[in-house]
Amino acid sequence: MPDARLIQQMQFLTEADKVKSIFRRNRILHGDRLENDAEHSWQLALMAIVLSEYADPQVDVLHVVKMLLVHDLVEIDAGDTFAFDPDAVKTQREREIEASKRVFGLLPGDMADEMRALWEEFDALETPEAKYAASLDHLGGGVVPNCHNEGGCWREAGVSAERVKARNRAIEAGSPVLWDYAEGLIDEAKSAGFIS
Amino acid sequence: MPDARLIQQMQFLTEADKVKSIFRRNRILHGDRLENDAEHSWQLALMAIVLSEYADPQVDVLHVVKMLLVHDLVEIDAGDTFAFDPDAVKTQREREIEASKRVFGLLPGDMADEMRALWEEFDALETPEAKYAASLDHLGGGVVPNCHNEGGCWREAGVSAERVKARNRAIEAGSPVLWDYAEGLIDEAKSAGFIS
Repeated sequence: MPDARLIQQMQFLTEADKVKSIFRRNRILHGDRLENDAEHSWQLALMAIVLSEYADPQVDVLHVVKMLLVHDLVEIDAGDTFAFDPDAVKTQREREIEASKRVFGLLPGDMADEMRALWEEFDALETPEAKYAASLDHLGGGVVPNCHNEGGCWREAGVSAERVKARNRAIEAGSPVLWDYAEGLIDEAKSAGFIS
Repeated sequence: MPDARLIQQMQFLTEADKVKSIFRRNRILHGDRLENDAEHSWQLALMAIVLSEYADPQVDVLHVVKMLLVHDLVEIDAGDTFAFDPDAVKTQREREIEASKRVFGLLPGDMADEMRALWEEFDALETPEAKYAASLDHLGGGVVPNCHNEGGCWREAGVSAERVKARNRAIEAGSPVLWDYAEGLIDEAKSAGFIS
């Protein structure tokens, strides 16, 4: 019989699998379907590695990757919250805190504490690691797919370039270089008439 | 204008997005559809972190995670190869080497070399990191989903418990504890009559 600790860890991993069925507002880059949270988390972790030279201030890359791999597990209970839906955003934190207790609570105590702390750190946006992780979340989960897909969910929701920039300006705190890049993409989407 | 290096890195990340449409033989745990390579890679990276205490010999976790995040990018060109299809397995390495040149070759030279080396290391199964990564690939990409789904693609292909064990025994080289766990799951699948 495997010991209780390993069983708990495997039960957590089995529960985590549910994010493969939590869909986001943006589409994948090659194909006409919505992206799910597992694919999104993979992409951000890969970006964290490939783009690490642009993190400013510098970061502990493993710490960023851990944060990104678990940052959306709270959506198993709380669902995906669209950034431009003010009513949903209002209740987001409360719903996600409850979810973090249940989902990370499936792990053995020491590991549950570590994973919840990672999620809290990501959400608080204070450390260099959290700021860089958020830059990637905005860039990879919003700017790149929406600009690639002719405005994507921004256009569907009628969000202006100005609001898009205000929302995504958080990229700058983790990486000024990536914010310059993102701003260029948003300007192009505006010039092309995809967003107003 | 962003510099040429960043443009190459973003082009690589855009190409990498294609693994979201490369489907594997196994199903997700909660839902009746095949798993894609991006979801699979996310899952293995998360497992690498949660189960790292069972890696034996010990490993550099960041190195393992990097390997797992990119290990299936060659399938963009080479496709998914079913482990129990001998004809496909015969040509697999050649197809994947060609793919690794093109896909990682999209990156700036230094980074292309680093990523190709990670993939080569994963494929060669010699370092502790590659052995642990392979343990997780077998456990998370084969044993867990197939045992969870009543034999899954093993049953569909009529593969016996004996062949399943021979194939997955590689788990032991990266983690004897995880091999004990996997062997238990395979025995249960046999007892339940899901595989012969």
